[in-house]
Amino acid sequence: MARPLIQLALDHLDAGAAVKLAEVTAPYVDIFEIGTPCIKHNGISLVKELKKKFPNKLVLVDLKTMDAGEYEATPFYAAGADICTVLGVSGLATIQGVINAANKHNGEVQVDLINVPDKAACARESAKIGAHIIGVHTGLDAQAAGQTPFADLSTIAGLGLNVRISVAGGIKQATVQQVARAGAGIVVVGAAIYGAADPVAAAREISELASAA
Amino acid sequence: MARPLIQLALDHLDAGAAVKLAEVTAPYVDIFEIGTPCIKHNGISLVKELKKKFPNKLVLVDLKTMDAGEYEATPFYAAGADICTVLGVSGLATIQGVINAANKHNGEVQVDLINVPDKAACARESAKIGAHIIGVHTGLDAQAAGQTPFADLSTIAGLGLNVRISVAGGIKQATVQQVARAGAGIVVVGAAIYGAADPVAAAREISELASAA
Repeated sequence: MARPLIQLALDHLDAGAAVKLAEVTAPYVDIFEIGTPCIKHNGISLVKELKKKFPNKLVLVDLKTMDAGEYEATPFYAAGADICTVLGVSGLATIQGVINAANKHNGEVQVDLINVPDKAACARESAKIGAHIIGVHTGLDAQAAGQTPFADLSTIAGLGLNVRISVAGGIKQATVQQVARAGAGIVVVGAAIYGAADPVAAAREISELASAA
Repeated sequence: MARPLIQLALDHLDAGAAVKLAEVTAPYVDIFEIGTPCIKHNGISLVKELKKKFPNKLVLVDLKTMDAGEYEATPFYAAGADICTVLGVSGLATIQGVINAANKHNGEVQVDLINVPDKAACARESAKIGAHIIGVHTGLDAQAAGQTPFADLSTIAGLGLNVRISVAGGIKQATVQQVARAGAGIVVVGAAIYGAADPVAAAREISELASAA
């Protein structure tokens, strides 16, 4: 089995702090995610800055687009985003719009299943119209209520769709191998790295655990 | 019946164009909305700029928050936003987080009912936990498929909740009085103003129609 990619969620509001974390963890990270609060706070210039500093890394912008898919996503792909996210709850017209924008710029789309009632149906339909990545995602507010993404990952992996599966929601050292073995092609890590006493050591450890899974 | 407030959606990506439109239409607009693509593109500095230029207008930031409600919204209220939006589909924990952020800064929250399956239940529960405004909203992608917000407005107005109701979704000269009479306390206008040959004349006309409704 191929090693899953490690995606680091840059959830900072301060762009400088986000870039600094990216610099020190770069050896252990495949995808830098500009988190939703971070992109709303800093705007598109951070996409350009991050892509310029890390031309060999993938940059994901967690737009969580809910409407006006093509209009909203197009400038972000043009600015260098490799992957943008769109909410599954937005519906197929919006998802299709983001796919159109991605295809024009050689980018990819991740459909985020957060709060989607019928996740299997949404994943199937999104894959059918050309989404590249399906995101199994337990949000921060749901994590605070004790929820995890593990059961949903099992459901989506069981569909056997021709997409990569990304998993986010409190993944840490203790769970990274579990999600890798359950079929995650992309493992999203946030607080387990940026909240660690030693973020570099935490990133290295997670990368090594994923490689050994 | 009180005149409904007119909210102008600044959907531009270019901040300069958004501010310029705000300047010329200001006499006829009560709330300047920084649209979702606009805030993701330009970041929080635009909130500060708009509030500084228009201290006597309300500024709404259409964050469409989906997760991490309090964390995401807090800096926007601190930067001068009078109203932020949160998606009804995000769930009550996230909505509560944005309400907490608003209450700490004397701001207000608009819960956007876009794509919410049970709109009446979401409106009732949101009002109960302290949301100030319920947004009946047919998105741009749904408008392109022929949908309108009129039936939902009638449903939500019929609940008699102690909130203001905002209506968005292709409102124009021909429909502004209909939505005002149906119970909209805030009428959101976008393309009917910024897409008009003469945006100032269009804003004046819509303002006059709303006053006469």
